Amino acid sequence: MSAPETKQGMIWGVGLGPGDPELMSVKADRLLRNATHVAHFRKAGRTGQARRIIGDMLHADVTEIPMEYPVTTEIPLTDPRYNEMLSAFYEESAAHLRDLSNAGHEVVIVSEGDPFFYGSFMHLYTRLKDDCPVQVVPAITGMSAAWTATGVPITWGDDVLSVLMGTLPEDALVEHMEKADALVIMKIGRNIDKIRNALRRSGRFDAAWLVEYAAMADQTVQKLADAGEKVTPYFSIIVVHGNGRRP
Amino acid sequence: MSAPETKQGMIWGVGLGPGDPELMSVKADRLLRNATHVAHFRKAGRTGQARRIIGDMLHADVTEIPMEYPVTTEIPLTDPRYNEMLSAFYEESAAHLRDLSNAGHEVVIVSEGDPFFYGSFMHLYTRLKDDCPVQVVPAITGMSAAWTATGVPITWGDDVLSVLMGTLPEDALVEHMEKADALVIMKIGRNIDKIRNALRRSGRFDAAWLVEYAAMADQTVQKLADAGEKVTPYFSIIVVHGNGRRP
Ligand SMILES: C[S@@+](CC[C@H](N)C(=O)[O-])C[C@H]1O[C@@H](n2cnc3c(N)ncnc32)[C@H](O)[C@@H]1O
Ligand SMILES: C[S@@+](CC[C@H](N)C(=O)[O-])C[C@H]1O[C@@H](n2cnc3c(N)ncnc32)[C@H](O)[C@@H]1O
Repeated sequence: MSAPETKQGMIWGVGLGPGDPELMSVKADRLLRNATHVAHFRKAGRTGQARRIIGDMLHADVTEIPMEYPVTTEIPLTDPRYNEMLSAFYEESAAHLRDLSNAGHEVVIVSEGDPFFYGSFMHLYTRLKDDCPVQVVPAITGMSAAWTATGVPITWGDDVLSVLMGTLPEDALVEHMEKADALVIMKIGRNIDKIRNALRRSGRFDAAWLVEYAAMADQTVQKLADAGEKVTPYFSIIVVHGNGRRP
Repeated sequence: MSAPETKQGMIWGVGLGPGDPELMSVKADRLLRNATHVAHFRKAGRTGQARRIIGDMLHADVTEIPMEYPVTTEIPLTDPRYNEMLSAFYEESAAHLRDLSNAGHEVVIVSEGDPFFYGSFMHLYTRLKDDCPVQVVPAITGMSAAWTATGVPITWGDDVLSVLMGTLPEDALVEHMEKADALVIMKIGRNIDKIRNALRRSGRFDAAWLVEYAAMADQTVQKLADAGEKVTPYFSIIVVHGNGRRP
């Protein structure tokens, strides 16, 4: 190898929290205000949620690196091409970020919520962590913002909390809903009817709350039973509170 | 009622996150630096974890309101006196905070982690929320800091995450450990042997990580199998990662 070598730049995986910029950590705030390179995911031509949270916090001369998902809802999840296209997209994005790190640049990759909790960042992380220095900054999850919005604590005493994705089969949902004391259901979208059925079958429907856009400007909070047959936005969480022991 | 009435002061339930003061939210940071009254829990004569996180952030002329737990480990949880003493303690603390609010003072009650997630703050909240204006600020949980510390994402695709308290009976622990993909186990302490057994019985022991003091100065991270028969501190979390679908 030839000297002098450039020192690799740190890659930061920074969680931005659920939406309100004031719910960002002091560390995320500091990293972003000093960032020279900021990478974020988005759908083609749309502002991603992470980018929206950042607003005008960045330096005027920052380099932004938008990473555009190649597919979203056009191809079903079960189509093998879905996985191939996504995998190629993550490889390509990771390669670009690796090059920046190798050239000595520090890069901040931002994520909505906590980066290690069902986050897209994880797919970059696994591809980068053995080649570059990577540090991850945890953040407030969407679910914390959702249960806070209901005004009711989520878990007491030795309540069991289970976090379920709406993409699970109905029977699996029912089984977990019956077993846990407190529930959080994410990735709802077109799964809402299946989720409603599962909540009814497990006797949890009447206790369920629907929170849309938690900690964002257009937050709504209501009992799921009051939401009618309404389709829910991508940023929706269903919450069922625990009722454990309390003095 | 006689005029002019004093406007009640806001009671803030503010989560401080897992330990590192930089992982506090920008909002928590702002509220604390401007606070005139700050209330926090502690064991008799000890500095509580929440108070420790705050460090020297407070105004010199702030009024601190330490709330001292009447019992901790001297009386077993099953003794009815345990509940009575705790309940009286929360009533008394809430009464004092209510008086302050009624006198027009804004009070910040700080909690370690997220206030609505197994937090002591919840016991004040239920006693105050109908009498005083109360606002809750969510925060990064101890578990987010713990899985971040392991350097491995906690949940992928439609992994189910279950959060279990070490205070649960062994059979209940086993049942949940078998059903979920990813696990977080909190409130470990003297339950560690029972938890180890339950992890072994459910076939999850070898995949378990032990994180002590996540995001605090003395953080340690190791496979549970490498921790030997060591007793764990109060601030310990066991993490088993999910292995769901990923492109
Ligand atoms: C891919 S997961 C990302 C989770 C994120 N990393 C977190 O820590 O919350 C996306 C799902 O999170 C949920 N979600 C995240 N933030 C939310 C918010 N602020 N309001 C409502 N739902 C949210 C929605 O259910 C959405 O379908
Ligand atoms: C009463 S619960 C409070 C949880 C807190 N409200 C939160 O959001 O994380 C206390 C338990 O949380 C866990 N815990 C919280 N913060 C932690 C940290 N920074 N490191 C390790 N364990 C932690 C421990 O298992 C402890 O027994």
